[in-house]
Amino acid sequence: MILELAVLDVKLHQTEEFEAAFRDAQRIIRASRGYLSHELQRCVEKPNRYLLLVRWRRLEDHTEGFRKSEPYQRWKALLHHFYDPFPVVEHYVAVNSTPCE
Amino acid sequence: MILELAVLDVKLHQTEEFEAAFRDAQRIIRASRGYLSHELQRCVEKPNRYLLLVRWRRLEDHTEGFRKSEPYQRWKALLHHFYDPFPVVEHYVAVNSTPCE
Repeated sequence: MILELAVLDVKLHQTEEFEAAFRDAQRIIRASRGYLSHELQRCVEKPNRYLLLVRWRRLEDHTEGFRKSEPYQRWKALLHHFYDPFPVVEHYVAVNSTPCE
Repeated sequence: MILELAVLDVKLHQTEEFEAAFRDAQRIIRASRGYLSHELQRCVEKPNRYLLLVRWRRLEDHTEGFRKSEPYQRWKALLHHFYDPFPVVEHYVAVNSTPCE
């Protein structure tokens, strides 16, 4: 399993519109092959900052499957204009560090 | 519920030691009042970067309860010397954007 992380800095005074657009856009990502779950979180210290966490079955489900899909064009159109600067996206893999669980 | 996020850049060639120290240190955070869960994830694009996500019941459980506790001194001693630069920690709250779930 892969965790996608994006810290999203939304243009000032556009956070309500962004949240509304995200409500629509999340249907697109949910329908993508290999999507497992996502969460959108809002920063306490900087209220125009959001955190998007998406869990994918495999890295390629995001980088190839989702990003090269037709519905991704709609995702981009809905969301990308809100970001300043444009976010850096990273991928993470869980560290097997909890043998006592 | 509050999500604590810290991106941890570990000094090069110290990642194995860091993971071993974290295996020990996680017992400290688990025992803290208001702690709900945590995960340590390793970056695919930058292998000496880690992501620590901790879920707390309330913000103060982290900022006051954990950070001002006696066991936090042990957490610091175990982990803080691995980081360069020292991480910025942020807190997030879930956006209620999934009414269809």
